[in-house]
Amino acid sequence: MARMATFPDDYRDLLDAQFATLATVEPDGTPQLSEIWFLHDDGELRLSLNTARRKTQNLMQRDQCSLMILDIENPFRYVEVRGRARIEPDDDHAFAGKLHGKYNADVAAYDQPGDKRVVVTIEPTRIRPVDMSA
Amino acid sequence: MARMATFPDDYRDLLDAQFATLATVEPDGTPQLSEIWFLHDDGELRLSLNTARRKTQNLMQRDQCSLMILDIENPFRYVEVRGRARIEPDDDHAFAGKLHGKYNADVAAYDQPGDKRVVVTIEPTRIRPVDMSA
Repeated sequence: MARMATFPDDYRDLLDAQFATLATVEPDGTPQLSEIWFLHDDGELRLSLNTARRKTQNLMQRDQCSLMILDIENPFRYVEVRGRARIEPDDDHAFAGKLHGKYNADVAAYDQPGDKRVVVTIEPTRIRPVDMSA
Repeated sequence: MARMATFPDDYRDLLDAQFATLATVEPDGTPQLSEIWFLHDDGELRLSLNTARRKTQNLMQRDQCSLMILDIENPFRYVEVRGRARIEPDDDHAFAGKLHGKYNADVAAYDQPGDKRVVVTIEPTRIRPVDMSA
């Protein structure tokens, strides 16, 4: 069992990257990929998701997921964080507001009436750093 | 059911990208992500994989997969190709040689004695273009 505490020091720059790729699993077992914003917050990797989205619904059904943070400057280098998604309400958009601080953009800007925001915290089971350029 | 014939014209530039992200599914149901080389070959998306690798073993057990090609210049834009992996032998490295042509590098350079190369062709069931910057 990995924990964020074991995140490798020489990949910590990626915790401040702008984008990550989230893999969830569809009801039929096929993986689903999305490019997302994220925040390294309180030592954890956290996402702000809209509950109307397929990726969120997938995580509500099956919490197994993987997050890849790619070094855009050197795509031979990345870290994959595999684990489980802990989903918590963000009804007051407290966490969405934190993301706003990182991106200077409102992640909830395109939410529709009735959509809800949740905070998804990745609970790592495996942290896999890769550098094929090394 | 999608086919490569339905690949959207305004994303075809991504077929010549240098990198893609492959999602497979671990035996326990967790998605697994790797950054890989690929080739748009004969109208199909094809990979050269080493059978000793976990991603290849995952695909041999469960052929459901997803390939994301990200526009590195604009990570708001990408295409996700979800589908099934058709795995065929590449014992003579004919396909690995084609990849060599694209990358000017030998994908089999780090293979160990006894490792085998296979050609993996993605048979799309869904092609999902995304442009969050549009």
